Amino acid sequence: MFGNMTVLGTGLLGASLMQAAKARGLCQRALAWSRRPETRQKCEQQSWCDGVYPTAAESVADADLVVLAVPVVNIVPLIKEISPSLKDGALVTDVGSTKSLICRHGTAAMPPQATFVGSHPMAGSEKTGLDFAREDLFEKRACFVTPLTDTPEPAVEQIVHFWRELGMEVATASPEAHDEIVAHISHLPHILASVLCDTLGTKNPDWRNYAGGGLRDTTRIAAGDPQLWKAIILENREEILRAMQGFEEHWQAMRAAIANNDPFAIANLLEKGKTYRDAVRND
Amino acid sequence: MFGNMTVLGTGLLGASLMQAAKARGLCQRALAWSRRPETRQKCEQQSWCDGVYPTAAESVADADLVVLAVPVVNIVPLIKEISPSLKDGALVTDVGSTKSLICRHGTAAMPPQATFVGSHPMAGSEKTGLDFAREDLFEKRACFVTPLTDTPEPAVEQIVHFWRELGMEVATASPEAHDEIVAHISHLPHILASVLCDTLGTKNPDWRNYAGGGLRDTTRIAAGDPQLWKAIILENREEILRAMQGFEEHWQAMRAAIANNDPFAIANLLEKGKTYRDAVRND
Repeated sequence: MFGNMTVLGTGLLGASLMQAAKARGLCQRALAWSRRPETRQKCEQQSWCDGVYPTAAESVADADLVVLAVPVVNIVPLIKEISPSLKDGALVTDVGSTKSLICRHGTAAMPPQATFVGSHPMAGSEKTGLDFAREDLFEKRACFVTPLTDTPEPAVEQIVHFWRELGMEVATASPEAHDEIVAHISHLPHILASVLCDTLGTKNPDWRNYAGGGLRDTTRIAAGDPQLWKAIILENREEILRAMQGFEEHWQAMRAAIANNDPFAIANLLEKGKTYRDAVRND
Repeated sequence: MFGNMTVLGTGLLGASLMQAAKARGLCQRALAWSRRPETRQKCEQQSWCDGVYPTAAESVADADLVVLAVPVVNIVPLIKEISPSLKDGALVTDVGSTKSLICRHGTAAMPPQATFVGSHPMAGSEKTGLDFAREDLFEKRACFVTPLTDTPEPAVEQIVHFWRELGMEVATASPEAHDEIVAHISHLPHILASVLCDTLGTKNPDWRNYAGGGLRDTTRIAAGDPQLWKAIILENREEILRAMQGFEEHWQAMRAAIANNDPFAIANLLEKGKTYRDAVRND
């Protein structure tokens, strides 16, 4: 159990994290910083919030665990901002969807008495903000912890333990391996959903009234926040471009099979897709 | 209300249709034909089935309404097979996902005393077969009725009325307009989901254990029956190739925006996608 946990950023993830950590007794006090005064005011009224501060530096001064739950582009600047205020033995982690840049710069910015270990809890929703926060957001979801080769093992273990106690299924991977994986299983699907919606947006908009469950499911994530996703895409652009290249090769194969009126090739591609999908868990 | 309704093919759609039509009093008797003896045996034991026949011709002899609920490639051959057995005034419709070929050949195959009106109820599931049938499958789903220019209006109205009474939101469109629409809102999303799964299938299969809700939703329809979907794709291949071409243009724009490290272009494409998706109903 941590004494004080400070969460920087109280959006969906940050606020859910405070609720969940308090409910499961993972910290004695859950403290917060939020940039916006309205959000700080809202936080103050919550039973799961033991203190909220107007500056990030103040909020982390007594923290044993600091979790950065802000958009990816803000993580490294915020680490640099809080770094001089961290107390002896402080552990710092984040919830960013990309890891290579964040882990490299985050670790470099740490003062000698504190340790940074990157995390990526794959929980969330296309809905954002404190109002949608819920205690069970992390349960049964996957979480990456992404140490560098020289990150101290005890710190890694504490962070792994923390997410596991929140009900997550934790895997450790290097930041680079993480970024390749999420480029494929998260960022590529997001881009496909967005581009499909872009395409349909140039057609008769009434067509969407005929949408079945297939279109609804396939495009759900395209409702995500464009500014957040723009930042994620830019942070992980090299891996994403490689994943897009891989997709294009399979897309061209499907297109050729259809253009060539080739039932065997079409069925073969659909069959391979089904085989993969049938093994994806549905919970 | 129809006297006898015969459903040809008792898979998910056909069996659900018999249940729903009986429950809502849309026919006095629900009769069925199924190719497989095991399925016929199963049907006989259902309260919603008033008779099941070993040949399609026998099953339609007394039918006021015939609904073909077989895979798209089997619809036209089956219409030809039952045509000589249809009684005076019989109405014939289908549930096929493509309409141009089926409506043209189906209408041409009708004897003078019967009328064909194409339908496409957009209800279904990646699960197939009688065992998954349910009475509420059609509720609040979209349904196309696709008359030719010379299809008698009273017949069209009866078919529209039938689907509406099952709780569907019915639109009429020409078979060609229908095929263009579903190429975009149903077939293109299916192909994207399949090709995404093809792509991921060539990567480390363990990655799927880290999948979040985004990947699960985006790929759900890739679990659909490859043989059924192969047939749908081939029947509608010209419209699908046009829809794929449209997608590729938007995909290339996104890829260029990412390759060029252009935050404004990326955000703009994501924003357009979100605008479209936000107006898709979620029920």
